[in-house]
Amino acid sequence: MKKELQNNPIGVFDSGVGGLTVVKELAKILPNENIIYFGDTARVPYGTKSKDAVIRFSNEIVGFLMDRKVKLILVACNTASAMALNEISKKVDVKTVGVIESGVFAAISASKRKKIGVIGTEATIKSGAYEKNIKRFDKNIKVINHACPLFVPLAEEGWINNQASKIIAVEYLKSIKNSGADTVILGCTHYPLLKKVIYEVLGRKIKLIDSASEVAKKVKNILEEENLINPSNKKGRKEFFVSDAPQKFKKLGEMFLNEKIVTVTKVNIEGKYV
Amino acid sequence: MKKELQNNPIGVFDSGVGGLTVVKELAKILPNENIIYFGDTARVPYGTKSKDAVIRFSNEIVGFLMDRKVKLILVACNTASAMALNEISKKVDVKTVGVIESGVFAAISASKRKKIGVIGTEATIKSGAYEKNIKRFDKNIKVINHACPLFVPLAEEGWINNQASKIIAVEYLKSIKNSGADTVILGCTHYPLLKKVIYEVLGRKIKLIDSASEVAKKVKNILEEENLINPSNKKGRKEFFVSDAPQKFKKLGEMFLNEKIVTVTKVNIEGKYV
Repeated sequence: MKKELQNNPIGVFDSGVGGLTVVKELAKILPNENIIYFGDTARVPYGTKSKDAVIRFSNEIVGFLMDRKVKLILVACNTASAMALNEISKKVDVKTVGVIESGVFAAISASKRKKIGVIGTEATIKSGAYEKNIKRFDKNIKVINHACPLFVPLAEEGWINNQASKIIAVEYLKSIKNSGADTVILGCTHYPLLKKVIYEVLGRKIKLIDSASEVAKKVKNILEEENLINPSNKKGRKEFFVSDAPQKFKKLGEMFLNEKIVTVTKVNIEGKYV
Repeated sequence: MKKELQNNPIGVFDSGVGGLTVVKELAKILPNENIIYFGDTARVPYGTKSKDAVIRFSNEIVGFLMDRKVKLILVACNTASAMALNEISKKVDVKTVGVIESGVFAAISASKRKKIGVIGTEATIKSGAYEKNIKRFDKNIKVINHACPLFVPLAEEGWINNQASKIIAVEYLKSIKNSGADTVILGCTHYPLLKKVIYEVLGRKIKLIDSASEVAKKVKNILEEENLINPSNKKGRKEFFVSDAPQKFKKLGEMFLNEKIVTVTKVNIEGKYV
């Protein structure tokens, strides 16, 4: 039974293509694991939607992943991690991991001045998930939050380091810059694409925390603890599912994943698994 | 039978809140009509989604509206008009009206130089719907198309006339400015909010065509022709339905509609009416 579980894939999902940055890190440190990825491209973005909606969308995706016998579910979307991780973990009998805690842990280790900036989508910032998790570890840490709703469309437009992105970044990062924070959590999987312009605005000394590599380590630890590491010596298989526009996902996804994507399968999960 | 039909509401839908600009014009010239509006706020935006997805979403909404016995369906979303109007009109036995043709008609009447610029979402521009419709009337008209994917998030962020929106508008409108077009179709219901910055970039002499008032006139004509005008002397009732976040819709909606919105009802239509 355990043996069979070990061969099962890890399920990863995101509202779109951004979670592939997490898959990339996962494949680096767990190269023999099979991965099933779901990108909800028909309903992207999640960051402007309500908690109810994000929970409903997440439950449908989790239903789809559980049907494919995943041994662990990694929520690679900050908004879904902030809003739906609790609900999901109550519903399934496999381990569930989100990106929030890993980012928080890395930021707390990195911050000398105990001042941490958090940027994310409107929904993630409104949820207060990062701030609550930071304060749980150390309530003396000062947290400066700022929603950056234009960063995702800027990144998807490929305008990652031009005059417009600079002006927008200056405006969004003003309060964090003025606060003297030495560490900033990039609380959205798209934001690492804007690192260059964020460094320009906040200075090279700022520590930017991108939870992708942290959460990959956490997944490895859990699989080891639970004796669920795939014993195979072969490179793991990656399968990609989307709710809309496989070709667009493939093209954009190869940029995020930094490797060739062979097939992307479109599936309709709306109103199912409920 | 006809009498009963006359009292029935007009169904209007959009991917979100933008279509309310059309409702506003409709209420101006048809004040006694009842209106049912559906905003698909759980899946907004449509402009980055595939044709398949937009047709599927539109069919679900039309199913919902038909259940409420609408006497005409007005597609107040440019993307859905471009991609799904044909499909919808085949499925229902009431008249269906989109925003494309009305915008085209107004632009052709306005353009002296026979050079028309068209701006819209990625999906609307890719569909070529405006260009095809313009060329159908007069194939000698030169059409200059440009997708402006950042305009919707800019408008929703309320950044309608600042330095960032100016730089973005200069970049997007470059080819239209250089072409010498004298008329530009605002092919997305959000774009009228950015009129000021568009005038700044293209000059005060440019004619900006916003299809909302044109399409309202067309609806009035159809109702008259079909003997479907509501004979009531009372102000019509407006009902608003959304797929997510009624409070947010109410707040933003009052800005677009320029009047108080009393109730907004959330309904789940995903995977239904198919």
